[in-house]
Amino acid sequence: MRILVLGGDGYLGWPTAIHLSAAGHQVAVADNFARRGYDEELGVESLVPIRSLDERISAWSDLTGRQLPSYVGDLTDAAFVHTMVREFAPDTIVHFAEQRSAPYSMIDQAHAVYTQSNNVIGNLNVLYAIAEIDPSIHLVKLGTMGEYGTPNIDIEEGWLTVTHKGRTDTVLYPKRPGSFYHLSKVHDSHNIEFACRIWGLRATDLNQGIVYGQETEETSLDPALATRFDYDHVFGTVLNRMAIQAVLGHPLTVYGTGGQTRGLINIVDTVECIRLASEHPADRGEFRVFNQFTESLSVAEIAQTVAAAYPGDCRIENLENPRVELEEHYYRAAHTRLLDLGLVPHLLSDTLIGSLFSIVEHHKHRVKPEAIRPTIRWTSVASELADRT
Amino acid sequence: MRILVLGGDGYLGWPTAIHLSAAGHQVAVADNFARRGYDEELGVESLVPIRSLDERISAWSDLTGRQLPSYVGDLTDAAFVHTMVREFAPDTIVHFAEQRSAPYSMIDQAHAVYTQSNNVIGNLNVLYAIAEIDPSIHLVKLGTMGEYGTPNIDIEEGWLTVTHKGRTDTVLYPKRPGSFYHLSKVHDSHNIEFACRIWGLRATDLNQGIVYGQETEETSLDPALATRFDYDHVFGTVLNRMAIQAVLGHPLTVYGTGGQTRGLINIVDTVECIRLASEHPADRGEFRVFNQFTESLSVAEIAQTVAAAYPGDCRIENLENPRVELEEHYYRAAHTRLLDLGLVPHLLSDTLIGSLFSIVEHHKHRVKPEAIRPTIRWTSVASELADRT
Repeated sequence: MRILVLGGDGYLGWPTAIHLSAAGHQVAVADNFARRGYDEELGVESLVPIRSLDERISAWSDLTGRQLPSYVGDLTDAAFVHTMVREFAPDTIVHFAEQRSAPYSMIDQAHAVYTQSNNVIGNLNVLYAIAEIDPSIHLVKLGTMGEYGTPNIDIEEGWLTVTHKGRTDTVLYPKRPGSFYHLSKVHDSHNIEFACRIWGLRATDLNQGIVYGQETEETSLDPALATRFDYDHVFGTVLNRMAIQAVLGHPLTVYGTGGQTRGLINIVDTVECIRLASEHPADRGEFRVFNQFTESLSVAEIAQTVAAAYPGDCRIENLENPRVELEEHYYRAAHTRLLDLGLVPHLLSDTLIGSLFSIVEHHKHRVKPEAIRPTIRWTSVASELADRT
Repeated sequence: MRILVLGGDGYLGWPTAIHLSAAGHQVAVADNFARRGYDEELGVESLVPIRSLDERISAWSDLTGRQLPSYVGDLTDAAFVHTMVREFAPDTIVHFAEQRSAPYSMIDQAHAVYTQSNNVIGNLNVLYAIAEIDPSIHLVKLGTMGEYGTPNIDIEEGWLTVTHKGRTDTVLYPKRPGSFYHLSKVHDSHNIEFACRIWGLRATDLNQGIVYGQETEETSLDPALATRFDYDHVFGTVLNRMAIQAVLGHPLTVYGTGGQTRGLINIVDTVECIRLASEHPADRGEFRVFNQFTESLSVAEIAQTVAAAYPGDCRIENLENPRVELEEHYYRAAHTRLLDLGLVPHLLSDTLIGSLFSIVEHHKHRVKPEAIRPTIRWTSVASELADRT
């Protein structure tokens, strides 16, 4: 298949691109390097050094003989999107190219507006390009489990069959997300479902859990193929951040009581899920939703798991929760559809966490400890990172 | 109360502003004249001539002695919104200031993107201004009944209590709207609910039905106070358009079978609903939704009602439906909350339609008949009105 990976220079976009390439697909990547720009803005860097996209692509080509054509541009530029899709003529578009940090979206008004306009408009332009150029292109779109929030009923995969006053319908699963970032993905999902309905597009919306890990079979072939590993409070996600805190001898910071339960997925499974979704496309007109995670843990359980796996001393500290979210809640979310396609999950284990510790150990001199503590509070309209204009 | 009406130069914003002013409130209006710009773009005009905002404000002041301060600017300009809200210091913000035509949003990619970015970002900026300047300001936001789509279960007012696998929750009513415009309002509703949740804002989301009529008690005091009356296929809504077709001796055009059922409301009731919602604010932290319509009719029934009321000959013609929508569907939508606040509805009657006919008769020389037939098809990514670049 010809697969275009949007956001192909990012934490997951890059490992996905080379995983699909290794599987024999013709892959191209697109990026505007916004993620590298956020590093500059926030004054932090990936814990693991990463190469430029050109160097990564050369290293992959040298190692495997496989080419990865690249497109540099912004999805909010409709002409760029149109030209790229027409030129590469993909069978599948995998869309990672969105601002993906909840705290980043909550820095201030400018960051909230940037996140929603960047994500929603970029995605609209992708939908229009597909509809106009080739409506049979399968869109594989990255969403998040955070779109659902924490309802007091079971979370299903995108759709919910409701009986109300004696009548029944299957409706889009009602969502109540927890940040302007998560909201942008809810907006995307509604727009995509509509595009499938009116233009007969085919789409798979992947509501992904929190990804942990840094290596895949392909990235570990050469240091030049490494993907980024974020530990800062804006882009670092919970398990990765805690692994770093353990190695640094810092307390593992839990926001609030830690009763918040979340779906998790290993990066190795993420890239495999994208392959499975791409190789088994949705039908024409179908808006299909998979919940892309493999196990659910509370934040307190994640901290306990990391602490137990770490060979040294490890303390857990409960911080005042910077977010507005329920800390004790029901959580039961379906996630069978990717298993049905053949996913064999790599569950959280001491081995996996141990390998994370050794990655951190190797690069711990690069950590800026002041970048770990959260400073963006949901109840405040402007954080200390707010634009000063 | 001090009430700021955003979009105060529009079809409903203007009559609402002077209705609230007549009720004794201190009212200011804001507009960027985008609606007058769409007329220029589309080469049409309001059937009833309208004065400039300054002339309207002067006429209202001459007639009643009441002042209406005005702000000219764009809600996507955060600094403009912030300065205005700080300066006028409203108790209530009534937000009409969005692109409000479904066909306009479906012209092409550029118009879809404009509609969603204009509406979503403008609304985000209003939320941020309220949160930062005075979170006790009550936001009264215009949504649409079209956000719900046509589910096979009863439509409730914003929230739905669901029992699923033996557990119960009250969730945001799941929505499946029918255009990129309607989607923009769904996005707004999600963003507003979140702002109420994290910042303790208070908001009333008014899911309004299709408005008909052109005169209110206040606008009929002087021709200089008239509001616009749209008959073109982009901005003209169904009942108003059919009244014009009847007077012109054209067939009343029904899209598809006409089995589509919609909630309707008289313009006289719309302005009264805004007054009632403003004078009975939501609680702090409350995201309240009212379905703002007074009766449901199918499009075929609307055509029959107009034809029966018209004294001359009147033919009904079924056109191929330019939209993608169900033409035969279940429709039962709650609308009791505004009645509970004291709304006394003016239902569709021969008298009301008769007064519409006489307005049309008076101005029928201004009609461009070629602007009535629909040319924007939902299944096509670009209509004949698409930007040529």
